[in-house]
This record gives sequence, C-alpha cells and structure tokens, in this order.
Amino acid sequence: MQATKYISSTQNSLVKKVLLLREKSRERKKTGLFVLEGLREIEIANNANYHIDTILYCQEILENSDILQSFNANQLISVSGEVYKKMAYRDSTEGIIAIAKAKDHELSSLAFETKNPLILIAEAPEKPGNIGALLRTADAANLDAVLIANPKTDLYNPNIIRSSVGCVFSREVKMGSTTEIISYLKREGFQIFCAALSASKDYTTVDFKEPTAIVVGTEHSGLSTEWLNNASQNIIIPMEGAIDSMNVSVSAAILIFEAKRQRKINK
Amino acid sequence: MQATKYISSTQNSLVKKVLLLREKSRERKKTGLFVLEGLREIEIANNANYHIDTILYCQEILENSDILQSFNANQLISVSGEVYKKMAYRDSTEGIIAIAKAKDHELSSLAFETKNPLILIAEAPEKPGNIGALLRTADAANLDAVLIANPKTDLYNPNIIRSSVGCVFSREVKMGSTTEIISYLKREGFQIFCAALSASKDYTTVDFKEPTAIVVGTEHSGLSTEWLNNASQNIIIPMEGAIDSMNVSVSAAILIFEAKRQRKINK
Repeated sequence: MQATKYISSTQNSLVKKVLLLREKSRERKKTGLFVLEGLREIEIANNANYHIDTILYCQEILENSDILQSFNANQLISVSGEVYKKMAYRDSTEGIIAIAKAKDHELSSLAFETKNPLILIAEAPEKPGNIGALLRTADAANLDAVLIANPKTDLYNPNIIRSSVGCVFSREVKMGSTTEIISYLKREGFQIFCAALSASKDYTTVDFKEPTAIVVGTEHSGLSTEWLNNASQNIIIPMEGAIDSMNVSVSAAILIFEAKRQRKINK
Repeated sequence: MQATKYISSTQNSLVKKVLLLREKSRERKKTGLFVLEGLREIEIANNANYHIDTILYCQEILENSDILQSFNANQLISVSGEVYKKMAYRDSTEGIIAIAKAKDHELSSLAFETKNPLILIAEAPEKPGNIGALLRTADAANLDAVLIANPKTDLYNPNIIRSSVGCVFSREVKMGSTTEIISYLKREGFQIFCAALSASKDYTTVDFKEPTAIVVGTEHSGLSTEWLNNASQNIIIPMEGAIDSMNVSVSAAILIFEAKRQRKINK
C-alpha cells in the first residue's frame, strides 16, 4: 500500500480534523473516532483489533516506513514536517499519527475468556495520568478487565492514551455507573474488595483466588458509600509512615500483584 | 511567639532569597538551606527534627495561625498576599512557607534502629516526580532508609519535596556513588536484590526476610552493570501484557510490599 496523498498545508481539512479529535471530547463522541500517536501505541491498538482508519506519517521523521504495511489502514497519507509538527502532541515524536475507530465500552458487552476473572474497578478517576498508570499496571498484570465507574473523562483523551503507553487498547475497558457495575458484579458472582480506610482487613489476609473485583476510589475522596455498602470486604494497605495515603496507581498495583501472587501459588 | 516583621514588598531581600533557594540548586548547596511549602510538609520536617530557620506566613490565607507556635522557628514573619503569591510554588497554597536547614545525607552517617533493615536504593533517578513517589511509598512501608546512588538532582528540589508530600523528610535518605553504596551493603551484610529483566527470579520466590536492599534503576535504562554484577539475585515482576515495563515507583512498591508481607508472616 502506497501513500495516496501528500499534505503540505497546515490548513488542510484533515489536519484540522486531527486537531479537533485530539482536543475535543465532544468531537470524538460525535464521530466515534479518536487520534493516537506513536508507533507502539498504534501497534498495540492494531493488535487489539482497533480499526485504523487513516495513518498520517512524516517521511522525514519515521525511520522505518515498512511498518506501515502491517496496519490495515483505509488510507495512508504522507505529510510534511511542518504539518506533522502541527498535529503532533508529544515533544519526542515518532512521525506517525493515526485516526482510529472507538470501540464499544458498554458494560453489557463485557465477556471473559476465563472462569476466574480478576478485574480492577476505578470509581470516578479524574486525572488522566492516574487512569493511564492504572491501565499500565492492569496490562502488566494481564487483568481480565478494567471497569471505570461514573467516568469523568472519555477514554480516548490523549493524556490517557499517552500515560497508559497504549495499554488503554490492550485491556478490556468498560464504563458504567457505580449502580450498574455493582449489580453486574453481584449477578456474576464476583467478590468485591474495596480499598478503604475504615472497617478494613489487611489486604494480605484476604483470599483473592475466587472471581474478584478490586475497587479503588480517588486519592482525594476515596470510594462512595454505595461501593463501601456493597463490598464483600473492605481492604487496606497498612500505612506505617508520616502520611496516610498512597498514590492510587501505586496502591492498586500492590493489591493487584498480591492477588496475582496468591493465584500463582494456587495453580 | 509573635511575628517580628511584616513584609509587603515583593522586592524585599528575604523574598528574593526564598526565590533563589527555590529555584537554584547551587544556592541551596552554598547556604545549606532550602525552602518548603505547605503545612503538612513543614509539620513532617519539624517532626523529623529538621531545623526550621524562618517561617513566612500570610494571615489572609492561613486559616489557623495557632499552629505556628508548634514550630521551633528562629523567626516568624508575616507577609502580604502579594508577597506570598510571589514566593509560593503551588496553585493551591496554604499560606505558609519555611526556610529550613538541610540535613547531612552522607552515607557514612547512616545508622539503623533495627537489626534487620529493609531499604530501597534508586540508581540515578532523574525525574523529581519519580523520586517523590518512591519516597512516598518508602514512607508508607516504613522503610529503614532510602539510598540514592549516583544522584542527579539535589534532594531539596521543590518538585521532589512536593511529589513526596513531605516524605523526603520522614525517611532516612542518604546519597553516595554506586561503588560506595555497594561496598557499604557488602560490609553490612545486606542481600542485594536488583530489579532487572535478565537472569532474574520471580520476585515472589525470593526471601526478603534477611537484611535486604531492593535496588531499582531508571525506567529508561535500568540498572548499571556494576549493580547487576554485585546482586545477590536479580529479581523480576513478570510482565504479562502488551508492554514490557512499569513505572519505577509502581514496580518498587510491588517489590517493597511483598517484602513487607513476608516479614509480617515471619513475626
């Protein structure tokens, strides 16, 4: 497949479309499209069966353009350095940007490949960097899904894609209200472990080997009472120092990898 | 103790000194002083026996000025809102800034209160945010010390103080070259576990119960061969997803809390 077009004007309509999709959540929702940048991110999305609509690349920057053939893009467009710079989000760019089709993140489409899933739930996470870090940990741990309860941002926010290093694509991510997700978990027989400060058991003393949802809130306000009231058990990482909270992505990682450890022994 | 002075001019020499100390590592080194901001940070430093030289507070912002009495400051200075804004580093300020005396972070001054220490070593960490996050985890885990090998920044960089939420003060932090630290660890009988990708054992299968140093490198380039050659054992967190690395503060937290778990069982 060869580039079908060369864009050298920063006023080109496609360039404007990329900028709109990058900046406006509303535009992403309206069109069902989003923008992603960087070779690794595009590879991960492609491997996860995201439909890549358009690839825009800058010959001057992209070192190996053979890679372009491996993406099933509808169109391949070459752009000038100036146009690339206008569209690019990062300082250290790799010369490749794609427009891709958003997936369905409805809770109702969630399906598991295993009978004993381990999933992470984040309630109302606000900072894209925290969401990205959670997704990155979820990827490393090969979690069966990540659910975002009462989401505050759309998943294709460029800061989420970037801070997740593409892991937003590699994981099964679903969204729903806290109420919907709780009733889903109960119906499906998950035990619900809520990270909380009160009425909590030390996380190393609970059994993560059954189908398990680990639920974390925001650093600032924790989990809603709706989650706490519906927990099978509240769990806590004992804090032994001068401060009383950890970064949410760090505490989620500690809980997730303790669950992984227990499950490894059980095999 | 009452405020001895009121500063309303942003051109005041003390205001200029605060700005210099905040911005210039060289100035901090020359004077042995540094600047810290926020009630919690100053409280943690004060509790950790840091010598607070000067407190500058803005009556309009600081809600409860009774707290000022609990710090053993040499001088207490009240400043105008404009002066405070000029000096403050954060958007959401609390109306209080201090000038404090740096501590000694020489490796030779390291002493442990326990016979079976668990310590974290970070080699050449670059991003202040990562150093802060490591210190925050070290605080939560009540680690006996954090050593920075081949440091690239000074410890009193405002971004480190801020991202550590003051935990840079609550922990015993020492600096030294990789060579110095390795010979220290060997002399003191520590087992050295290096987080590495090659020749590594799954971290859950090693025994953290003896005096242990957990050593992490940078996300980008890992640990130097000097560390790897001197490891008792390289350890790894198995990565099961699309990407092959985790954020250094997340992986350090997973290793540290596994060590904590093992030590808790042993008691």
